[in-house]
Amino acid sequence: MAFTFQVNTDIKFLHDEKFLSKAEHYRPTIHHSTLKPSRLVEITHDPSKLNGVWVKDSAMSLDELPKTGLKRGDRIILDFGQHVVGRFSVNINQTGSPMDAPLYIRLKFAEMPAEIEAKSADYDGWLSRSWIQEEFVHIDELPAKLELPRRYSFRYVEIEVIDTSPKWQAVFSNPEAVCESSADWSAMKIPEIHDELLSRIYSVGVKTLAECMQDVFEDGPKRDRRLWLGDLRLQALANYATFDNVELVKRCLYLFAGMTTEEGKISANVFTRPENVPDDTFLFEYSLFFISVLYDLNNAHPDTEIVRELYPVCKRQMDITLKMVDSDGKLITDEDYPVFVDWSNGFNKDTAGQAETIYVLRQFIALAEIAGDDDIQRYRDAMERMIRYSREKLYDPSRKLFLTNGNEYNIASQVWMVLAHVMSDDENREILRTMVSELFPVKDIATPYMYHCIAEALFEGGLRDEAVKLMKDYWGKMIELGADTFWEAFDPDRPEYSPYGSPIVNSYCHAWSCTPVYLIARYLTD
Amino acid sequence: MAFTFQVNTDIKFLHDEKFLSKAEHYRPTIHHSTLKPSRLVEITHDPSKLNGVWVKDSAMSLDELPKTGLKRGDRIILDFGQHVVGRFSVNINQTGSPMDAPLYIRLKFAEMPAEIEAKSADYDGWLSRSWIQEEFVHIDELPAKLELPRRYSFRYVEIEVIDTSPKWQAVFSNPEAVCESSADWSAMKIPEIHDELLSRIYSVGVKTLAECMQDVFEDGPKRDRRLWLGDLRLQALANYATFDNVELVKRCLYLFAGMTTEEGKISANVFTRPENVPDDTFLFEYSLFFISVLYDLNNAHPDTEIVRELYPVCKRQMDITLKMVDSDGKLITDEDYPVFVDWSNGFNKDTAGQAETIYVLRQFIALAEIAGDDDIQRYRDAMERMIRYSREKLYDPSRKLFLTNGNEYNIASQVWMVLAHVMSDDENREILRTMVSELFPVKDIATPYMYHCIAEALFEGGLRDEAVKLMKDYWGKMIELGADTFWEAFDPDRPEYSPYGSPIVNSYCHAWSCTPVYLIARYLTD
Repeated sequence: MAFTFQVNTDIKFLHDEKFLSKAEHYRPTIHHSTLKPSRLVEITHDPSKLNGVWVKDSAMSLDELPKTGLKRGDRIILDFGQHVVGRFSVNINQTGSPMDAPLYIRLKFAEMPAEIEAKSADYDGWLSRSWIQEEFVHIDELPAKLELPRRYSFRYVEIEVIDTSPKWQAVFSNPEAVCESSADWSAMKIPEIHDELLSRIYSVGVKTLAECMQDVFEDGPKRDRRLWLGDLRLQALANYATFDNVELVKRCLYLFAGMTTEEGKISANVFTRPENVPDDTFLFEYSLFFISVLYDLNNAHPDTEIVRELYPVCKRQMDITLKMVDSDGKLITDEDYPVFVDWSNGFNKDTAGQAETIYVLRQFIALAEIAGDDDIQRYRDAMERMIRYSREKLYDPSRKLFLTNGNEYNIASQVWMVLAHVMSDDENREILRTMVSELFPVKDIATPYMYHCIAEALFEGGLRDEAVKLMKDYWGKMIELGADTFWEAFDPDRPEYSPYGSPIVNSYCHAWSCTPVYLIARYLTD
Repeated sequence: MAFTFQVNTDIKFLHDEKFLSKAEHYRPTIHHSTLKPSRLVEITHDPSKLNGVWVKDSAMSLDELPKTGLKRGDRIILDFGQHVVGRFSVNINQTGSPMDAPLYIRLKFAEMPAEIEAKSADYDGWLSRSWIQEEFVHIDELPAKLELPRRYSFRYVEIEVIDTSPKWQAVFSNPEAVCESSADWSAMKIPEIHDELLSRIYSVGVKTLAECMQDVFEDGPKRDRRLWLGDLRLQALANYATFDNVELVKRCLYLFAGMTTEEGKISANVFTRPENVPDDTFLFEYSLFFISVLYDLNNAHPDTEIVRELYPVCKRQMDITLKMVDSDGKLITDEDYPVFVDWSNGFNKDTAGQAETIYVLRQFIALAEIAGDDDIQRYRDAMERMIRYSREKLYDPSRKLFLTNGNEYNIASQVWMVLAHVMSDDENREILRTMVSELFPVKDIATPYMYHCIAEALFEGGLRDEAVKLMKDYWGKMIELGADTFWEAFDPDRPEYSPYGSPIVNSYCHAWSCTPVYLIARYLTD
């Protein structure tokens, strides 16, 4: 994720070799498995599917493929039957007269049929077109096995013969994917889910998580293929409920801890290839969520040692944040260190940011207790001030809603204030009921990330039915539109909406959307 | 070369392992040398150059390149200062924020600036667009050394950054070509040439030949990159006058001899990668020219053994041809086994085909003498009949010109009848003078192949000044238009003419155009 680009090339970063060598130590094993396509398909139009684009069985069967010569302009679409993260290979030969020109082909990898329909040449979005999963390949000599060196994220592979020569045709056989993931399915805990749609949502969510579990928890295996802290928080929670790969969470924590700014601030994301490099992008609560990830880890797998080891990094984040809080307990936001909450900039995020700080402060204090920090009272006082300010200045008892700067009542404020448990459980329930009756339906929110927070707040406040309805309406709708994995961006009111202006660079397998597996495991099973 | 496609997939070929293992034995050493670009250029427009497109020094110097970040849409053009056949590599790094998206670049290799100006997307010619020397490359991790695996034929390399991301730029350094050729420049015989333009024509011709000397004598290193018999005949003649690589000629002869049809007919061309395969294209005089290549080889380097060894293959070609000659000595042409003479189909080729047969018959009889063939008288009789028919039925003494079917007087008929020495030397001179005064200037001929034959006939008939003028007007004009090597196709009346509808698939280094080195060595030096 990242909607606006920050460029902070003047910032200097530290590299803590102790932490980075631990990150290296926890580097996961990548499991490989071979998958063959299940059928050949062609594009069809179906208004009930994403962007009105779907696939149907091709006139040609997979068996006929190795017997069929393809000429200039011919194309096939392989359907692997499921989402794949991995490498692609195919054997290519030729038939007819001898090969009197190179073969020139185009391969396009698509998570959703809508990507195949969108023409790359038409893309003119602000996001790099280098993310379009399309390759143009010349082959001078046949037969050959084409083994593309890059990793792709896809279910469908379109192969177009751009040209052979009038004298011969290309023949494709044995297309194959070698799938990659650090998720170990044999370790997966499957809860019993009796509701059919929830069960389906759970399955798609687990698959989404698994596809994003690579050398790190990637945000999306198609794009941006890297470790974001806000996304990591949700992935780790979903992971404890499923694959429970603790080492991978630790690796990610050490990567962030090992590459802070000189001031000690943690980047919103880091790169790990070809070497470990922190991004120069900073998001207010993403830095803070380092504390949450450590807190959640210790909850899932109590580990005093790692808490004590990483506590100083947590404390640095909290101290940086508390400098932004005035003596009344009010967070003063800074547009150079933006509160994220959601991609949308259509609502004021000050109250949500205030709540997020309290949410994390509560977790931080629990860690401070384990670490035996003498400063602990200072943080308790800070939390109390922030809660008091929130209750007294931000809560509107007449409306039973939190308000924010500009006298705005928005969903994000209520959601995060409930998650932060600023009010009593009864008050929280009241706030959420008001939110549901007055601020619902959710409008202009396109991220599963924000929908996750709303659903979790509803569960947390005891509005279980409303939470389930939201999950079914949102994640269920993606499935109805054809999702094999959950998407980076989805606005149910505008299913065709892309933040980039084209489905071609959308990520249709994005980890921050996998959280139903966590919500179901935590709130809907015993 | 090949203007029309023949498809004869039902023909069965023999593989003579004895001949093919000799071809393997004579496989040449490929010499490698490293070349750096001499400057950065940009496209400019100059009506005096090919298609009005030329280059000038770029605002950026080569020294600045490794310090310059290139962003979406930026492009550079490297000028290697001379024609190159070989591999290309360049180091790529990035500057700015960390690399948050793949790098996507386009590389285009061009022999002439006109190719850079022509957009690939606009190409819709009949020839395979797979010949366009353009690659699209994604690079996921930088720094990297990009080493393209394919061989290209170029002087200019255009690199366009299709996309990085708004946060960083790509940096290119150490672009390099590793040149490949089996021509050994240290073995080159340089004649003294006092005429400046002829000296220039000679240099460009030698370079053209060297670039086409690879694993076989290729017709063109950009396209079609393979061994054509008609082209081989001219390359071998130019080779004896320059690099004198006898083994390479032998290799090519054994390749053709080793892969005839069951009937014994030799293909117009063969492929040698990934394995030896004869093409299913047949051209009347290309098959016959196997005899000429052996004859010329024995002239340059007398070798009774190889003449005796390959004589049966020659005899088979001649016997196949003589079946097409009627009892009066008239060649009956067959459109399934077309007489080539030139790409143009705008003139009747029957008389030229008759003359070509006589030309080769004369060489064949010389070989038959060496081989001690008892059948020799049969061929002498055939030649006499064909000469008699030509003199009596095809020569028009009132016009002092040969005519052809349809009462057409064309240049090709005169040229080949002179080369075949069907008439006396005096008559030949008269014919050529008539040709020059009545049929010149040459019109609608776009091949250096045909221009070579005209020039050679002029030399052969003693019209040295006219021959030199033709060479200067034709090959000199290519140099004036910017040629570093001579072209596959060039019509001086229409310099922009491409048989394919675009310069983008033209071959601007094509062996059949290198023959001035032979003509100068044979007719203009002592």
